[in-house]
Amino acid sequence: MLTVITGASGFLGRALVARMRALDWTGTIRLVDRVGLSEGDADEVLNLDLGEEGAVEHAVTGATHVLHLAAFPGGAAEADPAQSERVNLAATLALAKAAAAAPHPVRFVYASSIAVFGAPLPAAIDDDTPVLPTMTYGTHKAMVELALADLARRGELDAISVRLSGVVARPRAVSGLKSAFMSDIFHAMAGGEDVTLPVGPDATAWLVSAAVAADALLHAVRVTLDVTSPRILTLPALRVAMADLVAAIAARTGSPSRVGYASDPAIEAQFGRLPPLTTAAADTLGFRHDGSIEQLVERVLIAIAAP
Amino acid sequence: MLTVITGASGFLGRALVARMRALDWTGTIRLVDRVGLSEGDADEVLNLDLGEEGAVEHAVTGATHVLHLAAFPGGAAEADPAQSERVNLAATLALAKAAAAAPHPVRFVYASSIAVFGAPLPAAIDDDTPVLPTMTYGTHKAMVELALADLARRGELDAISVRLSGVVARPRAVSGLKSAFMSDIFHAMAGGEDVTLPVGPDATAWLVSAAVAADALLHAVRVTLDVTSPRILTLPALRVAMADLVAAIAARTGSPSRVGYASDPAIEAQFGRLPPLTTAAADTLGFRHDGSIEQLVERVLIAIAAP
Repeated sequence: MLTVITGASGFLGRALVARMRALDWTGTIRLVDRVGLSEGDADEVLNLDLGEEGAVEHAVTGATHVLHLAAFPGGAAEADPAQSERVNLAATLALAKAAAAAPHPVRFVYASSIAVFGAPLPAAIDDDTPVLPTMTYGTHKAMVELALADLARRGELDAISVRLSGVVARPRAVSGLKSAFMSDIFHAMAGGEDVTLPVGPDATAWLVSAAVAADALLHAVRVTLDVTSPRILTLPALRVAMADLVAAIAARTGSPSRVGYASDPAIEAQFGRLPPLTTAAADTLGFRHDGSIEQLVERVLIAIAAP
Repeated sequence: MLTVITGASGFLGRALVARMRALDWTGTIRLVDRVGLSEGDADEVLNLDLGEEGAVEHAVTGATHVLHLAAFPGGAAEADPAQSERVNLAATLALAKAAAAAPHPVRFVYASSIAVFGAPLPAAIDDDTPVLPTMTYGTHKAMVELALADLARRGELDAISVRLSGVVARPRAVSGLKSAFMSDIFHAMAGGEDVTLPVGPDATAWLVSAAVAADALLHAVRVTLDVTSPRILTLPALRVAMADLVAAIAARTGSPSRVGYASDPAIEAQFGRLPPLTTAAADTLGFRHDGSIEQLVERVLIAIAAP
């Protein structure tokens, strides 16, 4: 058993590796990323650009399980669609094909995104909601989902795409993500800083803590799937209003932060109007969200406080 | 004004060119295909494989309108997914990008397919039905639809994807299409031959005559679209039961053909269980089907009888 994680030095990759270590994950772990990995981070470490000649074959050699997290993020992809096509589409399809070429079955877990649903969103979202992205990032995610579902249907790759919501709390670095405010609110309040959000207090988001997102990805690695199983899943997430989130963080931390709201219509439309979400297919397969806003806040604050 | 038609020597391409000639189409017409075109078929004729180096740029040089019909057909694509990826995905995306690189706006009409809806189909299909292909052909069609919608959203290409149903009657050649029976029934009955269909008498299909399909493609070239217009449309089609189609052809031709039914479960599932179809978005934009089974049959028989 050899589990490969791409994008391993990213925010979610690091949370995933930490969780695998905590679970005493069976078999060899190989981490792959362009930059940011150190020897000793795992059994095997590959500093590799997946767009380079031969890189995808190198990355998945011998793999029995692949978690493909590497991506060119949303805001950056919108500004540079050609790079998104190279990374988010072409390199991802090439990686899947390289994994499919193995002489043994390979479970391929693809970290997709709710960006496949475009703005404005319908009044509710469930497993039958049509995919209609309004960002290049979401377009490429949706295209890959279709390609992987076809590989799974053909029996060439045991692939599953799982659509993640806003995973919090990302570090405060410049990440190219327009949705950064959903993470920044945790950091600001944990540090007692005043903060102004680019959405209104009634803005709604779908959130999941990094710890629960990592568990969902690992569940996707292990869950039993057959020819009748859905191969594209929207993962459960808590739907929270920003004012409720602020109140829950304040209740947990006693933070003196003053929180202001200065709604940016574009950000509000893309990230602040998320309707009720039902995820029956993923629920049936055992995927779970954080359970409550209090548990979400607690998990996120613990992660922020960790060294 | 320069209109480029790819796949121009195919069944639908020929019907389209005939219709453009009948309409005294304005501007230059350039036909593109790998094989089968002759000098004199149009103002410009390019015998070109779109997969070759530089071919897509050559094909669309100076184009103001592109009708992209070239495709590796469904049954063949299922047997050779790598070739489908080269033709139906990679070359198509490259063609769209070459068209988008022009210094003037280009209307790009993509002949998509109802194959984007997989089997088994839901109880009814409308503009909100999720795309979930169960053939590699339909997968690549759906991926291209998404990519073109994003190019349109970005303002880089005035693209529209139109999903065609079963266009009849194709010639009786080996076409790689599993749906050939929908065309063969016309040829057999027009010739007074006995025929056995691979579906039952109550099998339902969505059909459109080649003449009306050509008109729909030309409507897609000319219809006014703006930033709010849908860029992926399921085109109207008549839903007909095979027994009703056989009766209508018999009534029109007085054919002595005996028609048998020997249902092949796979073909029946993929092509013989088409549910009621509503196409509100396309209807609103002025797209039309044949109107009645009698008119469909008449148009098809006229086309078969033509030299």
